[in-house]
Amino acid sequence: MKGLLELNKHDLMVEVNRLNQLHEVDLAAYMETLDSEEFLLMSHFLEKKQLAEAFAELSRDYKQEMMNHLNDEDLRVVVHHLDSMELVDTIKELPANLVKRLLGQLDGSKRSLINQLLGYPEESVGSIMGVEMVKCLAEEDQAQILTKLSNSKFDPEYLQIIWMIDHNQHLVGYLYLSDLIRYPHDDLNTIIQTDVISVKTLDDQEFASNIMNKYHLSLLPVTDEEGCLVGVVSADIMLDVMEEEFSEDMASMQGMGGIDEDYLKVPAFVHFKKRIVWLLILMVTATLTGYIIQRYDAILSGSVILAAYIPMLMDSGGNAGGQATTVIIRSLTLGEVALKDAAKIFLKEFEISIMVGICMALLNMVRIMVMDQVSMMVNLTVSLSLLLTIIMAKLVGSMLPLVGTFFKQDPVVMAGPILTTVVDTFSLLIYFEIASLLLGL
Amino acid sequence: MKGLLELNKHDLMVEVNRLNQLHEVDLAAYMETLDSEEFLLMSHFLEKKQLAEAFAELSRDYKQEMMNHLNDEDLRVVVHHLDSMELVDTIKELPANLVKRLLGQLDGSKRSLINQLLGYPEESVGSIMGVEMVKCLAEEDQAQILTKLSNSKFDPEYLQIIWMIDHNQHLVGYLYLSDLIRYPHDDLNTIIQTDVISVKTLDDQEFASNIMNKYHLSLLPVTDEEGCLVGVVSADIMLDVMEEEFSEDMASMQGMGGIDEDYLKVPAFVHFKKRIVWLLILMVTATLTGYIIQRYDAILSGSVILAAYIPMLMDSGGNAGGQATTVIIRSLTLGEVALKDAAKIFLKEFEISIMVGICMALLNMVRIMVMDQVSMMVNLTVSLSLLLTIIMAKLVGSMLPLVGTFFKQDPVVMAGPILTTVVDTFSLLIYFEIASLLLGL
Repeated sequence: MKGLLELNKHDLMVEVNRLNQLHEVDLAAYMETLDSEEFLLMSHFLEKKQLAEAFAELSRDYKQEMMNHLNDEDLRVVVHHLDSMELVDTIKELPANLVKRLLGQLDGSKRSLINQLLGYPEESVGSIMGVEMVKCLAEEDQAQILTKLSNSKFDPEYLQIIWMIDHNQHLVGYLYLSDLIRYPHDDLNTIIQTDVISVKTLDDQEFASNIMNKYHLSLLPVTDEEGCLVGVVSADIMLDVMEEEFSEDMASMQGMGGIDEDYLKVPAFVHFKKRIVWLLILMVTATLTGYIIQRYDAILSGSVILAAYIPMLMDSGGNAGGQATTVIIRSLTLGEVALKDAAKIFLKEFEISIMVGICMALLNMVRIMVMDQVSMMVNLTVSLSLLLTIIMAKLVGSMLPLVGTFFKQDPVVMAGPILTTVVDTFSLLIYFEIASLLLGL
Repeated sequence: MKGLLELNKHDLMVEVNRLNQLHEVDLAAYMETLDSEEFLLMSHFLEKKQLAEAFAELSRDYKQEMMNHLNDEDLRVVVHHLDSMELVDTIKELPANLVKRLLGQLDGSKRSLINQLLGYPEESVGSIMGVEMVKCLAEEDQAQILTKLSNSKFDPEYLQIIWMIDHNQHLVGYLYLSDLIRYPHDDLNTIIQTDVISVKTLDDQEFASNIMNKYHLSLLPVTDEEGCLVGVVSADIMLDVMEEEFSEDMASMQGMGGIDEDYLKVPAFVHFKKRIVWLLILMVTATLTGYIIQRYDAILSGSVILAAYIPMLMDSGGNAGGQATTVIIRSLTLGEVALKDAAKIFLKEFEISIMVGICMALLNMVRIMVMDQVSMMVNLTVSLSLLLTIIMAKLVGSMLPLVGTFFKQDPVVMAGPILTTVVDTFSLLIYFEIASLLLGL
C-alpha cells in the first residue's frame, strides 16, 4: 500500500472519506500505525468530530503527539467534542503541561466540573460516571421536556432516559424517551417510573456493577450523599470496569500487578518486574517448609519413604484450599456472604471438608495398599495426615478471604500465594507429628 | 409483621399498592418469602404487568408454583408481558408439561420464533440476544419511523436505537431515537450512522462481549450468516454473561463445576460433589511425584537435607507457572493473542523466565549461604535446579492454555490443577538429575 504522503489529491480525499466513515475505535487503531508526518496530515484533513472521537481512543503517547500538533483552535474543537468521562480519562494520562493546556480550552463551569470528577477516589462510582443527562421536574409537560432534549448537545446514547428530579435536585423517577414519544397524550405520571434504583458517588464500582446486573439496568443514576442526582453510569462502561476487575483479580491471585496493555507489546522486562516481587517473597516464605523438614530430619532419615508422600499431601491441601478460597471470593464479590457469616462459612466448610477428606483418605489408603510396598503404619500415617490436611486446608482457604476483607484488603490478595504457604506449612507439621506418633520415630 | 392473610381489606390494598410500586426484582425476592396461600393471594391482586415482570425474576420452583396457581387466562396475560429472552430463559427451566402449557399461550409466529431461539447453542450470541427491535428502510422518513415506533409494544429499553436495513433485511446502519427527535428537519442521512458493528448468531458470547467492550456499545446488533438482522444483545445482559463466565473460569481453575446458586443455601453435599472429582484425580496423578522420589531414594538417603528444598522448588515452580498461565489466558480471552502466536509467546516467556530465574536463583544462593549450614555443592544443586525449574514452569504455564485452545477446550481447564501436576513432576526430575550429577549420588 502507498504511504499517505505519496497519494495524489484525489486519492487522498478518497482515503480521508473512508476514514471519516470508520468507527472511531478503528480509526484510532489506524492512526497509531502512521508516522509523524502522516499523522499530522490526517489530523488536518479529518472531520473535527471524527478526529475528536478518535482522539479519545488513542493511547497516551499518541494523544500527546496529537496535542503537540494541534493549534489552540483545533484543540478547542477536539476538546469540545469530548464528553466528561473522556476528558477525565485523558487528563489522568497526560503530563502536567498538557493538562493545563487542555483545561485552558474549557469554560469555567466545565472546568470546575471536571476538577470535581477528577477528585473522586479510584474505583469509586464517581470516577466512572458521566455527567451528561437530561433532568426534568415532575410538573413539566411533554413539550417542555422535548425542548430541553432538543437543546441538549450530549451524545445520543445519554438521552434514552430522562431523569425526574424535585426542586431540591433529588432523584425521584425516570422516563424513557421512547415512552414519551409513543404515548404523547398520556398523563406523564402514567409513564414515569418511580421504582428508581441508584447508587452514591463514593460507592465502590464493583457494588454498582452488582446493582446493574441484579436489576438489569443499562443506565444507573448516581446521587451524592444528599440524594441529589449528579451522574449516570452506563452498562457499556461497566463492561470495561468488570473486565479490568476480573483481570486484576486473576493477576492478584498469582501475586501480580495487573497489566493493562497488550501482552505481546509489553517488553519482557516489564513483565519481569510485575512478576518477580511476589515470587521472591514467596520463595523466602517457602523456606519455612524447609526448616520444618530439617527439624524433623531424624524422622525422615528413619523412614526415607515418607518423603515420597510430601508432594501429594501438599498438592492435595493446596487444591482443596484453593477451591474453598475461590468459592468464598466469588460469594463475597456477589454479596452472597459477608464478614458476619464467618461462623456459618466455617461450619459449612468443616462439614464439606470432612466428606472430602474421608473420601480422599480412603481412596489413598486403598491405592497405597494395592500399589506401594509400604507398611500398614506408614499407610495409616499418610492417610490420616491427608484427612487432617484437607480439613485444615478447607478451613484456612475459606477463612483467608474473610481475613483479607476484615483488614480492608481485596480478598483476592489473600488467596493463591499466601494460601499455598500457609497450607504447605501446616500440612508438613501435621504429617511429621502424626509420623512421630504412629511410627515412634 | 402481620401475615398477609390476617390483614383487613384496607391494609391489604395498601400493601398491594406498595408491591405494585416495587422494582420487579425486589418484588420477586419478596414473593419467594411468602407461603403458598399468601403467594396465591398476591398473584390475584397484583397488577398483571407487575406480576409478569416479577414472574420472570422468580427462581424455578416459584415459577412452577405460580404457573400451577394461574388459570389459562391469567397465564396468557403474564406470558404476553414477557420478552423473547425472558420466555426462552423460563422455558429452559421448566419441565415439559409446563413448557407445553406456556407455549400454548403464544400465537404461531411467536412460538416458532421462540423455538428458533431455543435452538441456538449454549454460550452462542443467539442464545442471549433479544428479537425486540424497530427496523426501518433507508427511504422511510421521520414520520413513518415514528409511527412504527409508536405502534411497537416492546419494552422501552429496546427502542433507543432504530436499525436501518435494506430490502434484503441486511443491516446497513442505525439511528438514535434521540437524534431523530432532536434533529427533525435534518435529512435523515445526516443522522444515520453507517459505522455499524455487528456479530453473528453463532459467534461465542465472549467474543460479543469483547466487541461491545472495545467499541463501547450499549446495544450490539446480531445478524445471521447472510448478514440479515435477526436480534440485538444489550450491555446489561452482557454484564450477567461476563459475571457467569468469570465465575466459571475461576471455578475451572480449581477443577470445580460452576455453582450458580447462593453459597450458604447450597447443601454441603452438593459442594462436596462439585469439588471431589478433581481432587481425587489430582491426588492420583500426584502419586507420580511420589514414584519419582522413590526412584531416586538412594540420592535422598545419601543426603536427607535435599528433601528440605523440595517444597520451595515445587512452590516456586507452581507460582511462576501460574503467573504465565493467568497472563496468557487473559490475553487469549481479550483476543490479544491467538494460537498462531505460540512461537512469539514461547520466546517472550523464555526471555522473562531467564530474568526471573536468574534473579531468584541468586537470591536463593545468598540466602542458603547466610542461613543454612549446607555444602556449596548442595547450594549449587538447589539454585541451579531453581533456575531451570522457573524456566520450565514459565514455558509449560504459557503453553498449556494454548494446548487447551488447540484441542478446542476452554484454556482455563488446562490451568491450575493440571499445571501443578506437570510442573511438580518436571521440577523433581530436574532437581534429582542435577543432584546426581553434581553430588555424584
